[in-house]
Amino acid sequence: MTVIVDGMGGDHAPIEILKGCAAAVEELGIDVIVTGPEDLLKKTMEENQIPEKGITLRHAEQVITMEDEAGCVLKAKRNSSMGLAMDLLKNGEGDAMVSAGNSGAVLAGGTLIVKRIPNVKRAAFAPILPNKTGYFMLVDSGANEVCTPEYLDQFGALGALYMKHAGFAAEPRVGLLNNGTEDCKGPELHQQAHALLRDNPAVNFVGNVEGRQIFDGVCDVLVADGFSGNILLKSVEGTASYMTKIMKESLTSNWFSTLLAALLKPQLKKMKAKLDYTEVGGAVLLGISKPIIKAHGSSNAKAFKNAIRQAAAFAESGAVETMTQLLSAPKAEPAGK
Amino acid sequence: MTVIVDGMGGDHAPIEILKGCAAAVEELGIDVIVTGPEDLLKKTMEENQIPEKGITLRHAEQVITMEDEAGCVLKAKRNSSMGLAMDLLKNGEGDAMVSAGNSGAVLAGGTLIVKRIPNVKRAAFAPILPNKTGYFMLVDSGANEVCTPEYLDQFGALGALYMKHAGFAAEPRVGLLNNGTEDCKGPELHQQAHALLRDNPAVNFVGNVEGRQIFDGVCDVLVADGFSGNILLKSVEGTASYMTKIMKESLTSNWFSTLLAALLKPQLKKMKAKLDYTEVGGAVLLGISKPIIKAHGSSNAKAFKNAIRQAAAFAESGAVETMTQLLSAPKAEPAGK
Repeated sequence: MTVIVDGMGGDHAPIEILKGCAAAVEELGIDVIVTGPEDLLKKTMEENQIPEKGITLRHAEQVITMEDEAGCVLKAKRNSSMGLAMDLLKNGEGDAMVSAGNSGAVLAGGTLIVKRIPNVKRAAFAPILPNKTGYFMLVDSGANEVCTPEYLDQFGALGALYMKHAGFAAEPRVGLLNNGTEDCKGPELHQQAHALLRDNPAVNFVGNVEGRQIFDGVCDVLVADGFSGNILLKSVEGTASYMTKIMKESLTSNWFSTLLAALLKPQLKKMKAKLDYTEVGGAVLLGISKPIIKAHGSSNAKAFKNAIRQAAAFAESGAVETMTQLLSAPKAEPAGK
Repeated sequence: MTVIVDGMGGDHAPIEILKGCAAAVEELGIDVIVTGPEDLLKKTMEENQIPEKGITLRHAEQVITMEDEAGCVLKAKRNSSMGLAMDLLKNGEGDAMVSAGNSGAVLAGGTLIVKRIPNVKRAAFAPILPNKTGYFMLVDSGANEVCTPEYLDQFGALGALYMKHAGFAAEPRVGLLNNGTEDCKGPELHQQAHALLRDNPAVNFVGNVEGRQIFDGVCDVLVADGFSGNILLKSVEGTASYMTKIMKESLTSNWFSTLLAALLKPQLKKMKAKLDYTEVGGAVLLGISKPIIKAHGSSNAKAFKNAIRQAAAFAESGAVETMTQLLSAPKAEPAGK
């Protein structure tokens, strides 16, 4: 199993990436190809005594920044760490790919270099988040800010297949993010998507899900249009960060509570781990013909290791093959649709 | 100052409402009119030794439930605790109104019985939430699931006037909830609303705001379409409740940590208070010609007292008068717009 890693994506490139790759080799037995400026990668490995074992470097001169336009990965910056990683994946030199770089470029490269599974309407970002009973997938978290009911229907079917193959649920329950739980809720887009999901034989649809229920374990796949999904994901991040700050302030407001809080460190650490969604890896780029994982921009070595593990498991699971099969099956629908 | 309170709205009606009213009379010197089935209200007051001082009961036979259609407040259930409260407010028998009942009915009654301020396009629900530096208003949190750029522009102007009159900010900063901070971000609705808000002389516009920034104190008014605003508000609630649960579990996972957590109770209480948005009151029904506050359905006596205080302050502030003035002023725009 070989995972290709964009060596220059994210806030802590390349050092945390290389450390994460070395950990993946050492702890998980996964081979890694890292793309990027070879001199810089080599130097970073030497200076930080990162073992070379299992890591192959592939030279790419350019780097895609967060400010770059998404499309640059296709032409102007094709010879970048991300562009090369996409080409290697497309050409079968590795089984899966991880990047923590520019999301728009990951989406553009995935869609137009690696390409979608036939009949997939749109690729979507699908992070996996913890909840009270385990984990759920949010799809789409921001790839498509304008959606059609058909996109949402497909997000549900593909998300369910991923969650099943990844071992999260035998028969994943699919919910639709909406502004109320009643069937008739939401704008037209959501009402139509609700009807399609309900009638889709490939989807175990459990109906509309409100924002306040998302952590209750009511579904394994939460379908959202990319705009609302993005608002949801980021407001969860914002709220968690705000609460953590308030908790820290409250617990260290005097010497006595600071002392008590120090004694509670193991419990607080356990709590943090339960909220840490990089434990699972990154966001799946759902609908692409090869496994691509988008790691969080702020990923550290451990998050990269987990994203590499997730990418390898994605490739091993055969999920892409099952998705391809599902979408190539003739549907009981009027011809020409 | 007299505040009219829907005596039968919310999960804990009428007992928590009546307790909250008595506290408002006692602690804040506000007179209260409570609507609802008089026998039930009287009996509840007697059984719970709630003092009658400053509380006037007004009989209404019917009760609007959460399952009722919004429109029932206008005709079929006009003689309900909420319908009567709206009529009393319209007729000037009180200065402001509070209800914790069916949101749709509050919106319908506010819009069609009490009526909007002239030239207000749509009324909006606008809760006030805590952040790292104080408070901000979210408008709209769910009254209008489909919006036009003009609605969003007006939400910004009216929200700013409220926050100024309520003393939260001298020159309120208005932000637009979007899926990125760059000016060009979002679907067409958001791009057009961005341009209108930027060019609106009545708005101190600070640009797009992402979900992860909402608690950072980057704006005093956060404008949102009602669908995204609803997703945001409910996901904040869901995340806060999930984190509180995890924290409790982590802190009570063994006898030693349970003991330490008990000693930290004052700090944990302080933390809870910082997150408790009922401290400020409820959501403003923004754009209506008289002050209406929608209290949270789960409001307890303290939350009702705070909502009554907020309603009275809203009436005293003259905010509705300033909003009316702003919207009646001729605009430097092509005639007929």
